[in-house]
Amino acid sequence: MTTSYTPDTSPLRADDHRITRDPLPGSEKIYLRGTLHPDIHVPMRRIGLTNGEELIVYDTSGVYTDPTVSIDLARGIEPIRQNWIEARDDTETYTGRIVQPTDDGVRTDEQLTHATAGAHGLYRVPRRAKEGHTVTQLHYARAGIITPEMEYVALRENQKREWTQTHLHDTERNTRLKGESFGANLPEEITPEFVREEIAAGRAVMPLNINHPEAEPMIIGRNFLVKVNANIGNSATTSSIAEEVEKMVWSTRWGADTVMDLSTGKNIHTTRDWIVRNSPVPIGTVPIYQALEKVNGVAEDLTWEIFRDTLIEQAEQGVDYFTIHAGLLLHHVPMTAKRVTGIVSRGGSIMAKWMIHHHQENFLYTHFEELCAIMKAYDITFSLGDGLRPGSVADANDEAQFAELKTLGELTQIAWKHDIQTLIEGPGHVPMHLIKENMEKQLEWCGEAPFYTLGPLTTDIAPGYDHITSGIGAAMIGWYGTAMLCYVTPREHLGLPNRDDVKEGLITYKLAAHAADIAKGHPGAIARDHAMSQARFEFRWEDQFNIGLDPERAREFHDEELPAESAKVAHFCSMCGPKFCSMKISTDVREYAAEQEVLTAEAIQEGMDEMSQKFQAMGGEVYVKERVG
Amino acid sequence: MTTSYTPDTSPLRADDHRITRDPLPGSEKIYLRGTLHPDIHVPMRRIGLTNGEELIVYDTSGVYTDPTVSIDLARGIEPIRQNWIEARDDTETYTGRIVQPTDDGVRTDEQLTHATAGAHGLYRVPRRAKEGHTVTQLHYARAGIITPEMEYVALRENQKREWTQTHLHDTERNTRLKGESFGANLPEEITPEFVREEIAAGRAVMPLNINHPEAEPMIIGRNFLVKVNANIGNSATTSSIAEEVEKMVWSTRWGADTVMDLSTGKNIHTTRDWIVRNSPVPIGTVPIYQALEKVNGVAEDLTWEIFRDTLIEQAEQGVDYFTIHAGLLLHHVPMTAKRVTGIVSRGGSIMAKWMIHHHQENFLYTHFEELCAIMKAYDITFSLGDGLRPGSVADANDEAQFAELKTLGELTQIAWKHDIQTLIEGPGHVPMHLIKENMEKQLEWCGEAPFYTLGPLTTDIAPGYDHITSGIGAAMIGWYGTAMLCYVTPREHLGLPNRDDVKEGLITYKLAAHAADIAKGHPGAIARDHAMSQARFEFRWEDQFNIGLDPERAREFHDEELPAESAKVAHFCSMCGPKFCSMKISTDVREYAAEQEVLTAEAIQEGMDEMSQKFQAMGGEVYVKERVG
Repeated sequence: MTTSYTPDTSPLRADDHRITRDPLPGSEKIYLRGTLHPDIHVPMRRIGLTNGEELIVYDTSGVYTDPTVSIDLARGIEPIRQNWIEARDDTETYTGRIVQPTDDGVRTDEQLTHATAGAHGLYRVPRRAKEGHTVTQLHYARAGIITPEMEYVALRENQKREWTQTHLHDTERNTRLKGESFGANLPEEITPEFVREEIAAGRAVMPLNINHPEAEPMIIGRNFLVKVNANIGNSATTSSIAEEVEKMVWSTRWGADTVMDLSTGKNIHTTRDWIVRNSPVPIGTVPIYQALEKVNGVAEDLTWEIFRDTLIEQAEQGVDYFTIHAGLLLHHVPMTAKRVTGIVSRGGSIMAKWMIHHHQENFLYTHFEELCAIMKAYDITFSLGDGLRPGSVADANDEAQFAELKTLGELTQIAWKHDIQTLIEGPGHVPMHLIKENMEKQLEWCGEAPFYTLGPLTTDIAPGYDHITSGIGAAMIGWYGTAMLCYVTPREHLGLPNRDDVKEGLITYKLAAHAADIAKGHPGAIARDHAMSQARFEFRWEDQFNIGLDPERAREFHDEELPAESAKVAHFCSMCGPKFCSMKISTDVREYAAEQEVLTAEAIQEGMDEMSQKFQAMGGEVYVKERVG
Repeated sequence: MTTSYTPDTSPLRADDHRITRDPLPGSEKIYLRGTLHPDIHVPMRRIGLTNGEELIVYDTSGVYTDPTVSIDLARGIEPIRQNWIEARDDTETYTGRIVQPTDDGVRTDEQLTHATAGAHGLYRVPRRAKEGHTVTQLHYARAGIITPEMEYVALRENQKREWTQTHLHDTERNTRLKGESFGANLPEEITPEFVREEIAAGRAVMPLNINHPEAEPMIIGRNFLVKVNANIGNSATTSSIAEEVEKMVWSTRWGADTVMDLSTGKNIHTTRDWIVRNSPVPIGTVPIYQALEKVNGVAEDLTWEIFRDTLIEQAEQGVDYFTIHAGLLLHHVPMTAKRVTGIVSRGGSIMAKWMIHHHQENFLYTHFEELCAIMKAYDITFSLGDGLRPGSVADANDEAQFAELKTLGELTQIAWKHDIQTLIEGPGHVPMHLIKENMEKQLEWCGEAPFYTLGPLTTDIAPGYDHITSGIGAAMIGWYGTAMLCYVTPREHLGLPNRDDVKEGLITYKLAAHAADIAKGHPGAIARDHAMSQARFEFRWEDQFNIGLDPERAREFHDEELPAESAKVAHFCSMCGPKFCSMKISTDVREYAAEQEVLTAEAIQEGMDEMSQKFQAMGGEVYVKERVG
């Protein structure tokens, strides 16, 4: 089939007005410079506070929130890694695979309606490793090389901790809050060398396809900040390309560290081009979805050759990590027969159907070494999929789930042998008391490769609220050591998320990840909480809005009752009214105490002694027990 | 001041159309009969499923969701406990305290505008213990008496477990899911005798003022289902009486086990009358709020006499439990001076201000024995308030918080000496790694009296989403042993919750409580999850909606994309479309397996052996490790 194909690029125009570009309220983009690699510019978000202080926070939103950068979606954003990749001189461009109509789900009878151009405006000539070279960050790390990408993430993870250092000097408090890391290693300062070591050990990954030079490097590992992934994508029944690109931008705005494009149906190749070329965050996919489209949805018609071709297609586009369900084996399938909800992973069920039909082992498993050859040529990260993840709390931690996890551990060793960065995917639906076992087994069986879980959902009974049933599990497993949390939106089990759902899911997962960072004792994580609480105590309402994860909603909720500008500096809020505010009373108490100087331990003790004597005389035994000091 | 006062009753009329009265979708009210006490009618909600099965669930919504009951709000709902109380013959009616204009926040200069009637339509002659009698459930329990209230809650807690017993017969699964109870004692069947024992031990309470005979008995204790409280109430800047009563009905509809009326400002006495007379759930209050109103909001003008008068006022109205901040002592106050957010409890800050101004010990502490005399005369449950709960993660588990908790433990012993049922209130803002210590210290210091916590919030940085930051902590502390969770709404820190916020907060807390029940291994809790997951696996969409905690939202989300009635029985949904549904494939796999009979362990092993030999020949060591069986 040599007919070439021009994808439809009409849905988007340059500087499309549908793309959200305002900075978040009170915020501006700043860039940190590298030392080892001075051409590094690490974007951070600076929140200016009304008391003259500032808070620097991690920023996933890319150039979209930098008003000084003009963006032409039809050309893609700036390829910031291009020079670094070229400077390593271990890659080469080559004539890539020809884009086929079937890549976009266009059937044979429709082919003639398309012009015979080679490639559309966003097409980039693909790059791959030169013969005999390995171009993965894992390879460089093991060779002792600190790449610009490694220094980049070191600066990024540190979040410019000056603020923290000037505000967190209370020793008693710091001891109390130091966290329980369950064996995670969280140094005071993240150095480029530490990043290199973690990647070399396989404990962290930077999903960075050499064909996605637009991506801002980020790191996933349990010794770093807990990350969040957002799934986007159309399906056979809904959506358009323009919506999908804005969903990516919208996701990164609200904190998505990576985005998975799970599109099915038509235009998935073209949609992916638009997304990758314009994405500042790593993009993940589940290639089996597109492969299935190419065989008209008939799982048993899938072949290794079709799958392989799809991998190459997506590798050349620049997808940064692939979910590959290679650990689901033929003998695992019967283990699911007694389950309440069988196999709920789409990829898992496709492979199960294929295996049973052919009575053959999973071709992703039998061709795993060949898979590795592709992954390493582009530095694509494996995300070894859990095709047997539980779809109900009843199926959590069962034989099938853990048998597959063990296999994923074995595959990890093979991937590492090839210097391929590797993530392990995890559940799913898991009641709280069974969550920790997932983390422990994953660490043990998968050699500390980063864990990447979907929730887990801690109960099945709240459709419409599964961002919350799963946010609970996500916070817990993040605390225990999961490196990245795949978000769940309120629409889970009921439909595809819309714009509001994506935001709701992301904020939920950002707060869960942050709660996990605090509980682990990640240095600096708690700085934002302290800044918020100080603003709260000092009635700095504007700062409370802007420090929070969703300044827009916070302001909207506040203003519904007290819209006046004067209320933003008022020492009360609508909850208790002006006379009755505990924060205000608390401040009064503090001032009063300072004025009167009566609150020394001695004076109190004196008062207590008097009181104690009085009530002992009355027979009240309780009053003698509590003493100062 | 002898001028009597007629509260304004105009905001509500009989059968007010603003009160929500439809049963939940697919549900009908059923009543279980008592055995020891045949006049008991315990309401449960029966969800009829499309496959002919049924699911019986706990129902907090009272007669409002029983269309066969006509309700006249101006007369109050039926006093179901009246006969039981009278039959015990240990109480008497008496001429109660005269209602004062100041009870409703009406100042002297407004008095003359009110008629001089004695009491309005909902006024009930109050009842108290006869001289020399103790009328608390704790007293009866210790005396070995199984009251109708105790049998009532036993039936209620069991949730008619026939469904569970017929569906949960898989031994392997039950072992896996048996839960980690952290020392809680969760018998297979809740007997009336078990209820009595738990109450006698102080490990559980039934907040049931003898002047609130309308309340449906419920129990709070860590060996029972985890309960949820909703706070409602007006404030100086918002709300009306009519809204408050519907908020109570609305709260119980979405699962509030108790409701706290935290009104401040005007009409709080009258609001409370309306709420209590029409409430099927126990009502709690923080009496210091009203006492403060009576002294025009000037904390230092508070006196024991004014507070005592307020307690009597509310006791006669029928409030079931009082939050009393008696554990915050003068010498605790300086411990808060270095806190990031000082004292954030309203009650706590009021008492702190009073103590510092007068340089005297907390009058709630010095008058605690007198307090006990009031509580026991009406069987009002103490909810010993944590005035020093942390208002930021920075202040969690600090000296001040734990010093007060220890005092609460001492006060519990005094309350128990008087046969008074007692709850202990807990935090607040607590990072995940410090939550467990709260539960452990509470159990140790407070003699296993039920713990009743506000969240806790696991991070400070998500205003607008604090139902979630706290839902995470609530699920965890519920699992560890907290008996009742006080909800937090999305409006926390920003304003007073509206109708949507109340519902959102409640569903969040119901799912957190349920996740805790499952993790603890509460027998029967998981039945609802299984019913949901089976419905999900079998594409029974109507059942999925109706089994869930919020049938309305689930249906709405689903129907936005697939509104057709036919989609409710379709074997796919909008997430993946018809061709691509993993649930469908999973069913196909199961059917295929049954047809082909190839999935015996032997056949698989044969296939594996073949595969294994093949790949060993290729040098693929990974393929020999995993075997069937």
